[in-house]
Amino acid sequence: MPIAGHGDKWLQNFVPYLIYRISNQLNKRLRGRLRKSGINIARWRVLSVLRAHGDLTLGRIVDLTAMDQPAVSRIVTQLEREGLARREVSTKDSRVVHVSLTKAGEKAFAEVYPTAQKHQKRALSGFTSKEIDTLKKYLRRIQNNIEAEE
Amino acid sequence: MPIAGHGDKWLQNFVPYLIYRISNQLNKRLRGRLRKSGINIARWRVLSVLRAHGDLTLGRIVDLTAMDQPAVSRIVTQLEREGLARREVSTKDSRVVHVSLTKAGEKAFAEVYPTAQKHQKRALSGFTSKEIDTLKKYLRRIQNNIEAEE
Repeated sequence: MPIAGHGDKWLQNFVPYLIYRISNQLNKRLRGRLRKSGINIARWRVLSVLRAHGDLTLGRIVDLTAMDQPAVSRIVTQLEREGLARREVSTKDSRVVHVSLTKAGEKAFAEVYPTAQKHQKRALSGFTSKEIDTLKKYLRRIQNNIEAEE
Repeated sequence: MPIAGHGDKWLQNFVPYLIYRISNQLNKRLRGRLRKSGINIARWRVLSVLRAHGDLTLGRIVDLTAMDQPAVSRIVTQLEREGLARREVSTKDSRVVHVSLTKAGEKAFAEVYPTAQKHQKRALSGFTSKEIDTLKKYLRRIQNNIEAEE
């Protein structure tokens, strides 16, 4: 039987992997938490970026949610049908559609928001506010580094 | 035309989202970089966890790579066929298969490793070693928090 181990554990020091792994673990947990709140994670992602940004084109929602275009279109259609989002064709360019939340959409977001807050609180359990600020600052710097390359 | 904005930017302060977004952006970049090195990201993920851990069951590879079981099986089969990995049935439990890299597998890993290092270096551009240590410490604490909940 091969003896477990013998690896060099290099991934424990590889930041992109740490981020990848944590992201996957957080997603999995968030999915479970949202399910209990009666909302699927894809819907939550679209609601949350619309709440954060106010109004967005479909392409920008795809970018910010890291979901694929058909999934985003489907969810925006659902949200519109349920009166939670509205679509408006840009007056500047008729090929561009702007999506935003209605009042009912903002309410739907607000109902799930405590679940998201709890999710974050658990992940950052034991962190001081100063440490959280430092962490956010570091994460934003990484993001800036990535975006500077694009 | 709706005026862009009007969101409350809440996601900029929501750590799980920052991690999710960075993870997706890093994946996208890594995929491009590996493609230039002639290896796809799924293969790289399997090679990298085997290198880090020495020998792993299929289930553990699924867990550590966050890939699905059929994809992991397919890649392990490929790697074995190419002489880069070996599979051994556990002497303790014949349902359990241990996978490890061969010497050729370690070499294949080593060839791509500089690409991964470059990827990390770019993401952490401008960080001091002390800041990188702090970042890793924070990420591991988040990971421990998530795992403590499971």
